[in-house]
Amino acid sequence: MSSRGYIVPIGGAEDRSADSAVLQRFVEICGGEGCRIAIIPTASQLPDTGSTYQKIFAELGADRPKSLPLFRREDAENQEWLGVLQRADGVFITGGNQLRLSTILGGTSTAAMVRERNLQGLHVAGTSAGAAILSEHMIAYGKEGSTPRGESVALAPGFGVIGEVIVDQHFRQRDRLGRLLTALAYNPRLIGLGVDEDTAAVIGPSGDVEAIGAGAVTVVDPTQLSYSSADEVGPGQALSMLNVRVHILVKGGTFNLIDRQAAQHGTVPSETGAPN
Amino acid sequence: MSSRGYIVPIGGAEDRSADSAVLQRFVEICGGEGCRIAIIPTASQLPDTGSTYQKIFAELGADRPKSLPLFRREDAENQEWLGVLQRADGVFITGGNQLRLSTILGGTSTAAMVRERNLQGLHVAGTSAGAAILSEHMIAYGKEGSTPRGESVALAPGFGVIGEVIVDQHFRQRDRLGRLLTALAYNPRLIGLGVDEDTAAVIGPSGDVEAIGAGAVTVVDPTQLSYSSADEVGPGQALSMLNVRVHILVKGGTFNLIDRQAAQHGTVPSETGAPN
Repeated sequence: MSSRGYIVPIGGAEDRSADSAVLQRFVEICGGEGCRIAIIPTASQLPDTGSTYQKIFAELGADRPKSLPLFRREDAENQEWLGVLQRADGVFITGGNQLRLSTILGGTSTAAMVRERNLQGLHVAGTSAGAAILSEHMIAYGKEGSTPRGESVALAPGFGVIGEVIVDQHFRQRDRLGRLLTALAYNPRLIGLGVDEDTAAVIGPSGDVEAIGAGAVTVVDPTQLSYSSADEVGPGQALSMLNVRVHILVKGGTFNLIDRQAAQHGTVPSETGAPN
Repeated sequence: MSSRGYIVPIGGAEDRSADSAVLQRFVEICGGEGCRIAIIPTASQLPDTGSTYQKIFAELGADRPKSLPLFRREDAENQEWLGVLQRADGVFITGGNQLRLSTILGGTSTAAMVRERNLQGLHVAGTSAGAAILSEHMIAYGKEGSTPRGESVALAPGFGVIGEVIVDQHFRQRDRLGRLLTALAYNPRLIGLGVDEDTAAVIGPSGDVEAIGAGAVTVVDPTQLSYSSADEVGPGQALSMLNVRVHILVKGGTFNLIDRQAAQHGTVPSETGAPN
């Protein structure tokens, strides 16, 4: 019985200690103790990004996690690294610049293997740029602010591991609701997932999105959108959108991408229960 | 035996007389005399665009071609118009502004029906904006010029009738090779199809792209791309791309999207055979 793998966009700046709720959950999804995790460090220009994650995943129980040195397009056809990916239970894509991921890996055997093996059970997580690249339509760059404006966001094709959503990351910390709304206004066929730092949207094979970690996953659902002015606004002008539905999911909150219903499971954790 | 329908992006400004090679071919694909064609005029702001195409397709032999008045998002859920689409042999999407198509029809039952029925045999053609909207990744707008430059193109999600290509239109007439190259550099997973005016790329169920009409279809294939600087260039800066393969197809020329091979069938028509 084969089922597609989990897809886990992380909002960046996740806790990298042994207590990390987000990374620990990814290791559990991959099978826990002894699981095989491959790391794609391509987005980063820092030389130690790959080795840092090798160390973290080893501490969390993975068996000799391997960072693949994919820094030029030809590296992405290397049979040895493709073999590591072929045998992995999970792949983790680091942060950096998402256009490095699409420019260097787009159209290569590596990107095709990540997409195709996810359909056969490979679990795929990415943080920051590594989260952005997961979707078919990727936010390449954009402007800050909480309301949508004309031309405030630039899209590029991502790896296409998931087709139904557009992911945005560092969501609360970098004030990105406006650019995510703008991206959705261009074609209200997709669902927006704005993921805060140290937070992840765990997307299961059934299409359930579950929020985990310290912050929130903001689900922006334009299914009922009755009007937008995205075809008319000039650069920087305020953009009109009517009937956008928003869910703020925190730990225990879920949203299903198929029936587009949100739910809260258990109670939201609170320190005191009292207002401050 | 069901097979997916043809997909026919047209470069705009096509001959609209009874001699039109491009529109005549679409009618033949739809079954010729007596075929049922539905027209989507949403991209246009001119009141007579739909009725003009009704008249042309009737002259070419279609049985009472019907332009659907889809001008607001709620129109796209109208059961009567969806019924017309359901019974059509072919759908024709007019020119105008492609962001009107994605903004007004994106995520609606109409867009979903065009995409899903194409998989079951509905033939889909579009001219200019109507060609742009056919692909998953659509060029929304951009700048002129023959070489790629940073941020010279803006992408938005299209209807997704075809996933493997990015279409550009008025290609030679509006000097758009540069913006198409830029779009492909962002993620060299896709094939570019630059379609001249009064010209079409006829895409068959087997993935064969055939050029018809007065001009050329420029196929830009980045499969062998060894390097691009798309992740590094600033706005307006010249962008580096190494090993891009280009085919200029005219009448009789084909390119297959699966094996990515080009071929010339017969000889290229010429008025005199002599150089000028």
